[in-house]
Amino acid sequence: MVKNFEGSRAKEVAERAGVSRSAVSRAFNPDSYLDPKKRARILKVAGEIGYQPNMAARAMVSNRSHLVAVLLPALQHPWESQELDVLIGELQAIGFATLVYKIPTADLQIAQVSHLRAYNPDSVIVYSDGLPTEGVKSLFNRARPIYPVYVDADACDLASDSNINQGFDRLEIDQRPGIRRAMGMLAGSGCKTMVWLAGDDSTQSNIDRQKVVLGYAKQYGLSVSESIPGDYSYERAREEICAYFRAHPMVDALVAANDVSAFGAMDALRHDLGLKVPEDVKVVGFDNIRQSNWKSYDLTTVGMDIHQRVRALVRLIRSRLKEPDAPDLYERVETRLIVRGTVI
Amino acid sequence: MVKNFEGSRAKEVAERAGVSRSAVSRAFNPDSYLDPKKRARILKVAGEIGYQPNMAARAMVSNRSHLVAVLLPALQHPWESQELDVLIGELQAIGFATLVYKIPTADLQIAQVSHLRAYNPDSVIVYSDGLPTEGVKSLFNRARPIYPVYVDADACDLASDSNINQGFDRLEIDQRPGIRRAMGMLAGSGCKTMVWLAGDDSTQSNIDRQKVVLGYAKQYGLSVSESIPGDYSYERAREEICAYFRAHPMVDALVAANDVSAFGAMDALRHDLGLKVPEDVKVVGFDNIRQSNWKSYDLTTVGMDIHQRVRALVRLIRSRLKEPDAPDLYERVETRLIVRGTVI
Repeated sequence: MVKNFEGSRAKEVAERAGVSRSAVSRAFNPDSYLDPKKRARILKVAGEIGYQPNMAARAMVSNRSHLVAVLLPALQHPWESQELDVLIGELQAIGFATLVYKIPTADLQIAQVSHLRAYNPDSVIVYSDGLPTEGVKSLFNRARPIYPVYVDADACDLASDSNINQGFDRLEIDQRPGIRRAMGMLAGSGCKTMVWLAGDDSTQSNIDRQKVVLGYAKQYGLSVSESIPGDYSYERAREEICAYFRAHPMVDALVAANDVSAFGAMDALRHDLGLKVPEDVKVVGFDNIRQSNWKSYDLTTVGMDIHQRVRALVRLIRSRLKEPDAPDLYERVETRLIVRGTVI
Repeated sequence: MVKNFEGSRAKEVAERAGVSRSAVSRAFNPDSYLDPKKRARILKVAGEIGYQPNMAARAMVSNRSHLVAVLLPALQHPWESQELDVLIGELQAIGFATLVYKIPTADLQIAQVSHLRAYNPDSVIVYSDGLPTEGVKSLFNRARPIYPVYVDADACDLASDSNINQGFDRLEIDQRPGIRRAMGMLAGSGCKTMVWLAGDDSTQSNIDRQKVVLGYAKQYGLSVSESIPGDYSYERAREEICAYFRAHPMVDALVAANDVSAFGAMDALRHDLGLKVPEDVKVVGFDNIRQSNWKSYDLTTVGMDIHQRVRALVRLIRSRLKEPDAPDLYERVETRLIVRGTVI
């Protein structure tokens, strides 16, 4: 019955737009080819008479929901919200709506999010280390999850055979190029003793980042004084850096696990401790969020091109939908160093 | 067939959890009462055997999708992303997933977003002045849209009879209490000449805010020099304030339409023009985003309690679902002044 009602409405659109019934279906299917002018005309007519194929009905028939689920711990942070903004826009442009779901970072029980399966997303992007891949894979019937993963300092090439067919698709992030340049620049600016302000210890991204930073620091002859605990937040960073630098005034370089904690560190150095950045202490952050360009911080940072990242994610989604049974797919993006006023 | 398959799975959950079949349905329906311990047991068993009622099937039967659509122009801005973060969390807690959709602020054709209807959301929150209410109302079959609206300086009470039954529910924001205190505080700190750094001229929120600010400024004897154009962005604010203060060095108070443009203004005053905040120029922002507490800005600002706002939105959603035919619903929230280091 649903199908018949759908059918009679689709027929009306086809008649008014002077096209075939199958052109109308194709117009609403982002994966179908259709002359762009024809598609625009059909969508216009459909809009005028208020026709829209019922996605719920269509999902049951076609097994496509045109929904992409994004799972992430929080979205109030600048980095997450800036990437999500670009991602949602790009997905809309190809006909997908985005379902945003918050998940805790640690100790998540898959049962807590099991009702997400019911929305039947076509794809799932998981921005979290806390969610076990096995659990996520079992959670969704069709959608193979996409994880951003970090290239380890030891790994020559993550696309090596041993990594194929883990059952999830990957956005591989090579942190090395940007970090190597950052460490080289700190050493070249005369720094001797560096500290690492860590992110959340429970996240793989923090562990990987720390490993790469400490590796290149050693290679460039920087003495690494210590790792200061952190949680990616401004407040914790400011507190920890105050306490640490009161006890260790000789440190002359600070590398923070993200930009927001670099801002907390800079405010501690300047406003709480009366030190100058970059004259007394040089600072490097991670992410290149928009705020790192604000003049009060003007932060040198290791970041990625957000549009390049999002395009890679969208390619993964489209490729997987075209070939549901292909082996693991991957895309690779690299970090770079964005030089601003906190080193020289 | 869908229903029968659903039914046999639900029966299995009921047997394993030692409850009735109807308790299983109630456990998955956030609007149904069920003893919390019983609900937890049922969801645990369902998680273990991977049972979840199929939302697409359920939506067709029950006419409920358990989706809330949020339409907004962008989500990379701190204010939007911070509110959305809290909202998504609260909605999840009562069993709703959130579909986030970006819409342009101006000249939006309803046809461009008409396919959103197909997701059949139970509720729609519209964070945008650009979307005509008539269009949005016609867009969704069941969901009555919720708009945040601003209490005008002239209106005694937006809940007056004339405003009832516009066909959408409202989160009414009374900007006056916080703005009145801000203007009083500027005047009390000895300010004589104030400028208003506007937000986007095409948005009703900016027009309303400006009206209230200028009204109270006059009342407190502040001479309002001019309105400086802006667009809520850091970059535009910094540029405009540089140009303006070079030509008007006597201005001693600046009120910006949001916190982010207040930061741009402060960086222009301090770093580009060599002025001191608050000694030479006092600055007030709007929103009370987290960044306004960062020590480099430490901004005095007019804001709202984000949790109070979100609770009010959630109450609107739940009340409307319970009474689909009730006249327009509204909730009211007030601004307050958060005093930090940019005035005294």
